[in-house]
Amino acid sequence: MNIYAVIMAGGVGSRFWPRSKKKTPKQLLKIFGENSMIRDTVNRLKGIIQPENIYIITNKLQMSGVLTQLHELPVENIIEEPFGRNTAACIGLASILIRKKDPDAVTLILPADHIIKGEKEFHDTLLSAAKFADESEAIVTIGIPPTRPETGYGYIQIDENPVSDSVYKVLTFAEKPNYQTAVRFVDSGDFFWNSGMFIQKIDVILAEMKEYMPDLHEGLMTISEAIGNPDYQDVLTNVYGRLKKISIDYGIMEHSQKVYLIKGNFDWSDVGSWEAVYELSIKDENGNSKVGNVYLDTAFDSYVYSPDRLTALIGVDNLIVINDEDALLICRRDKAQDVKKVVDYLQINKLSEYL
Amino acid sequence: MNIYAVIMAGGVGSRFWPRSKKKTPKQLLKIFGENSMIRDTVNRLKGIIQPENIYIITNKLQMSGVLTQLHELPVENIIEEPFGRNTAACIGLASILIRKKDPDAVTLILPADHIIKGEKEFHDTLLSAAKFADESEAIVTIGIPPTRPETGYGYIQIDENPVSDSVYKVLTFAEKPNYQTAVRFVDSGDFFWNSGMFIQKIDVILAEMKEYMPDLHEGLMTISEAIGNPDYQDVLTNVYGRLKKISIDYGIMEHSQKVYLIKGNFDWSDVGSWEAVYELSIKDENGNSKVGNVYLDTAFDSYVYSPDRLTALIGVDNLIVINDEDALLICRRDKAQDVKKVVDYLQINKLSEYL
Repeated sequence: MNIYAVIMAGGVGSRFWPRSKKKTPKQLLKIFGENSMIRDTVNRLKGIIQPENIYIITNKLQMSGVLTQLHELPVENIIEEPFGRNTAACIGLASILIRKKDPDAVTLILPADHIIKGEKEFHDTLLSAAKFADESEAIVTIGIPPTRPETGYGYIQIDENPVSDSVYKVLTFAEKPNYQTAVRFVDSGDFFWNSGMFIQKIDVILAEMKEYMPDLHEGLMTISEAIGNPDYQDVLTNVYGRLKKISIDYGIMEHSQKVYLIKGNFDWSDVGSWEAVYELSIKDENGNSKVGNVYLDTAFDSYVYSPDRLTALIGVDNLIVINDEDALLICRRDKAQDVKKVVDYLQINKLSEYL
Repeated sequence: MNIYAVIMAGGVGSRFWPRSKKKTPKQLLKIFGENSMIRDTVNRLKGIIQPENIYIITNKLQMSGVLTQLHELPVENIIEEPFGRNTAACIGLASILIRKKDPDAVTLILPADHIIKGEKEFHDTLLSAAKFADESEAIVTIGIPPTRPETGYGYIQIDENPVSDSVYKVLTFAEKPNYQTAVRFVDSGDFFWNSGMFIQKIDVILAEMKEYMPDLHEGLMTISEAIGNPDYQDVLTNVYGRLKKISIDYGIMEHSQKVYLIKGNFDWSDVGSWEAVYELSIKDENGNSKVGNVYLDTAFDSYVYSPDRLTALIGVDNLIVINDEDALLICRRDKAQDVKKVVDYLQINKLSEYL
């Protein structure tokens, strides 16, 4: 069994504005410690997947950042999407490219910008999932046992009778719930957080695409035939540009009968906002987490990032303060989801120097 | 009667950090509208005092800023204190220098960094005060009828029987009171805000200095004798350096029997903090006042200054945000007095690049 990783690194992570920008998206930032999130994502695969089997799928703007940060990966493993077409197309493109090299590949699809703690449990889960996916022709999602009624995550409901060790048949996918529903999900015991990670043989996912997303499949086959030909880039650009923007969850997972869930018994966070960064950071005795040049006076429960200029806080609490080179964000922690609205505003007003 | 103005412009205004710095103190900043506070202070004298009778007393660091901003004043009217020695020495030095030119001068002493609205009332008050000071050999302070129990101002108590139109004998000077005392002051009707402005003949203030601050007077006479001599700067530096740092209120006003008060029937603020700036600024329908490049989302009752970089506020209220070139202040409005503590911290830690 040959396991490959496909790390999806095409998003911007606009909730991380002003640090996240088109050229420096969330996954390329050093949000925790010394490494960027994508660097940590690749490091985390050490011992189970060889560098030559690790693929990154990204876009033109982020290409040079990815190449610089992940210099040990073969250059041809860094796939450039000509346009963003959501996750179904992205995974399809990676699948046909890896298939050329290894038609029997088992692929692990991973987001580039999540935090995982507990490397051994993570590895064990991946290897079990890969084994089951390979033997049972299954798509195996990794579900995280929920520890709180989080409304920022999607949930996956399972049939409670395991089909194998820690592996369950998936009944339904549920979008981000409201708080009441989230409480019900967590209390039920048969709902798990959707980690966005899943694993399957290439021919399995392509077969499901043929079944449930025939237009996508047809496009992918056209592109696949052109691989290695001089007109490959033209074909890719033409065909990819006409693909619909559909997520893998919506396009495949919610319909396929081959979807299973394996419990991921490790700490996981999708680090969806500055609030999540605050929660995951080490705090001082006043509940503050600070990075850089920061003066605090009667300040509490706040996250302050100020790598260059001096930032002074007096008499405030529960703030996110991101004092970046050309823009400053000051946001109440419980409004961290609304950071995206600033990015929308900047886009609408064509203030691209801040994007 | 020849009226002269002496504008005291030696302070830093550390409550206005990070905008106020040693070289760009409060009075040289454009805090409201197009003009700096000192520019407005000089403009306000138009029509009652000629430019050649307006003196500025400042220090080496602020000299070039003052000269640039007040280019219509004769260069010799910009007096440079060799060291800061508080207001008694400062006024004494200005007095002996003006005495050389005009021994009969009536001098109006003015802070450089206050806000006044109601120019005609201001002029009428000054002219009445000057007339009384000249005819009665008096020191006439300008007292503002209090409109609220402000704890940030000093108060002056009068004898309620006027000695002349709107002029009263002063009974006591009171330091900044606590809230309860301030309420009592305001309710009493015989307490006024101490505007820091006062007017008197030069020989009167020098005589009172001789009486109540003989060491200062002796030093001033030594300096005065050296005016015009080649060793003037040396004498000034030597003598001034040994003078005690005493305020004119503490040194003279609280002791002299010649102190009177004239009611100033104009709007006045010493603009003592960013909170005062907020209070004096025009606000939008959400109670926000913003200068520069600012995005607001569910933000209320805040003052935001961000002339260059973009500042985005989400879900916050009652904040002062000063996003200056090399430093950022975020302060709850009711903690605006504590901005001084940042400056103390920077001084103690020798972080002079921010001072």
